[in-house]
Amino acid sequence: MVRHVRTVLQEVNRLLTGLNCGKVLETIALPESATALSMEHGFDLQAFCFHADKEVLREPRVVRVGLIQNSIALPTTAHFIDQKKAIFEKVKPIVDAAGSSGVNILCLQEFWMMPFGFSTREKKWCEFAEPVDGESTEFLRSFALKYNMVIISPILERDMNHGEIIWNTAVVIGNHGNIIGIHRKNHVTRVGDFTESTYYMEGNTGHPVFETEFGKIAINICYGRHHPLNCLTFGLNGAEIVFNPCATVGGLTEAMWPIEARYAAITNSYFVAAINRVGTEIFPNPFTSGDGKPAHTDLGYFYGSSYVSAPDASCTPSLSRNSDGLLITDMDLNLCRQFKDKWCFRMTARYELYAETLAKYVKPDFEPQVIRDPLLHKRSS
Amino acid sequence: MVRHVRTVLQEVNRLLTGLNCGKVLETIALPESATALSMEHGFDLQAFCFHADKEVLREPRVVRVGLIQNSIALPTTAHFIDQKKAIFEKVKPIVDAAGSSGVNILCLQEFWMMPFGFSTREKKWCEFAEPVDGESTEFLRSFALKYNMVIISPILERDMNHGEIIWNTAVVIGNHGNIIGIHRKNHVTRVGDFTESTYYMEGNTGHPVFETEFGKIAINICYGRHHPLNCLTFGLNGAEIVFNPCATVGGLTEAMWPIEARYAAITNSYFVAAINRVGTEIFPNPFTSGDGKPAHTDLGYFYGSSYVSAPDASCTPSLSRNSDGLLITDMDLNLCRQFKDKWCFRMTARYELYAETLAKYVKPDFEPQVIRDPLLHKRSS
Repeated sequence: MVRHVRTVLQEVNRLLTGLNCGKVLETIALPESATALSMEHGFDLQAFCFHADKEVLREPRVVRVGLIQNSIALPTTAHFIDQKKAIFEKVKPIVDAAGSSGVNILCLQEFWMMPFGFSTREKKWCEFAEPVDGESTEFLRSFALKYNMVIISPILERDMNHGEIIWNTAVVIGNHGNIIGIHRKNHVTRVGDFTESTYYMEGNTGHPVFETEFGKIAINICYGRHHPLNCLTFGLNGAEIVFNPCATVGGLTEAMWPIEARYAAITNSYFVAAINRVGTEIFPNPFTSGDGKPAHTDLGYFYGSSYVSAPDASCTPSLSRNSDGLLITDMDLNLCRQFKDKWCFRMTARYELYAETLAKYVKPDFEPQVIRDPLLHKRSS
Repeated sequence: MVRHVRTVLQEVNRLLTGLNCGKVLETIALPESATALSMEHGFDLQAFCFHADKEVLREPRVVRVGLIQNSIALPTTAHFIDQKKAIFEKVKPIVDAAGSSGVNILCLQEFWMMPFGFSTREKKWCEFAEPVDGESTEFLRSFALKYNMVIISPILERDMNHGEIIWNTAVVIGNHGNIIGIHRKNHVTRVGDFTESTYYMEGNTGHPVFETEFGKIAINICYGRHHPLNCLTFGLNGAEIVFNPCATVGGLTEAMWPIEARYAAITNSYFVAAINRVGTEIFPNPFTSGDGKPAHTDLGYFYGSSYVSAPDASCTPSLSRNSDGLLITDMDLNLCRQFKDKWCFRMTARYELYAETLAKYVKPDFEPQVIRDPLLHKRSS
């Protein structure tokens, strides 16, 4: 009977990580220094490997990617400086574990350097905002240099040169500690009564792809994952890995979470690395959510579950819903072109047709292509 | 211990149909006449229900949708007339079960009236092609009239008025037996060495939405599900249900199957009904697949697994991989607008930006937006 349960559980595992994800990925052995850090500091550490076919003319281009998910470190009532410092302290050993595991490109979660205070509608959380070369960038630059690691740092940005306005920005720090560039979130969350558009507006940086020593990468921040045209355009610009740092809660998006990164990876022939923060964040002043329910002091439960998805429809298991964690993934970027060649999605995409359609659609006098059943008309008259 | 196994299996069920699909849907009780037909003719019969919130100004608009998946009925070596007749005979009780269950809109699988001979590269299978008002339409019209049911019939079309060319076409038969219109597949499958483009070319019917008595529907045939712009455009034209009749085999697409319909439903705020045929079809003459492997006589296993996905990220369980089946789903179409209002995907989509980007992209001199790490240049020089 015990054997029977074991068989059932193996079948569950096959269904959940095998059939649904295309294949079961190999795990990677990590250095003891990394596992020791994960034990000592209590964060989850998982590592998997995507393969590509061997090619004749190109060497494999294996890149080691790291994703960090974490909860905040102090109550939101603590002094803002202490909160930020405590997050830095918490994240440090995880970044060290990534560095000592030989990670080439590391990405943190959306607004990793602060609590997610935007549901409160209070303006005081803007105090966490920093210029692109602010203290979060300074903090991470040292690790980028030390470990020869590209680091993507999604922050709340204050644009000092343009009237001190606020942006939702990812800073791309090169493996020599230089700032390669920034990307500002293209689509601003508006769900139910919740909008971040009183804090920051739609990004003005387009869909940049950053050419780094380890591959061509792009950043699609949070809500942008719901927008197929946004995902598409990073692909058109040549992205091989799209990082999707998020802050999103159970109940709202958890049923979509296993879908969106995978669809983007499949249809755009690139890898997608999806990251979400962890835990419940309690704020001092209650707020309502336009749903008729009593005021509350939290937005919901940030469910972690960071994972990586590949062009061939395979994906890693997710990190846990509850723990800080580091997900390490080896990926041979050659898979992107191999999948393009095999599936021909770009060649068959008929972009001319859609360029024309969208140009018509955005005009106020656009008329949808509708074929009405003529008998419907007779019947209702 | 038996109880323990049961608990494990319940957990499996929760994970597979609950957590992953947003929620577990209610089942619908069907009339005895329908279940009797399913018992007698050995096809699977499942029925589920999607709900929407009650509105003040609109009544619920509950539509009952049916999907049919099936294997062919005779060997591909049988006389073509006998093959087609046998499929008609096989499908008849399933259509009757749909009709007697009060289905409002019924959709059959891609090329339901013939074996999927396109992997053979032989031209003789074109003999199965019919004009839009051919015998398959005639056959289904009687059921449309009898049951007051819209029927979508995906056929191999021969266009007698345009040089007898072949199309991959869905005929929309109105609930009064009239032909409301047709849609021709927009994106033609090219995967590995396999292309259907020696049989038919890219469709010239745009992205029509058919306004029927039971709602606004569109048809996205097979490979079109991999194309986000295609899915999007049916939505821009106002589709509330997009039917996705397919013929696709395990190994090739099974890992993508649970992803694509759901993403399209979520991001476009419509229902997606995905249908796939069943079984292995053996052809008389062996053919190769450009993969260096020996010649074979089948394309692979058509894995059924038809299902319906909703804008709120919930979905029905799939029909089986192995049996003919009828999936019946009640859906309140009010959910589409409710989800649009809640999630604001269209309002936040910035179509102007993408109309501009695509217009640039389709020009031969398009240059991708790439930000190169300046230190990368120094390093490699």
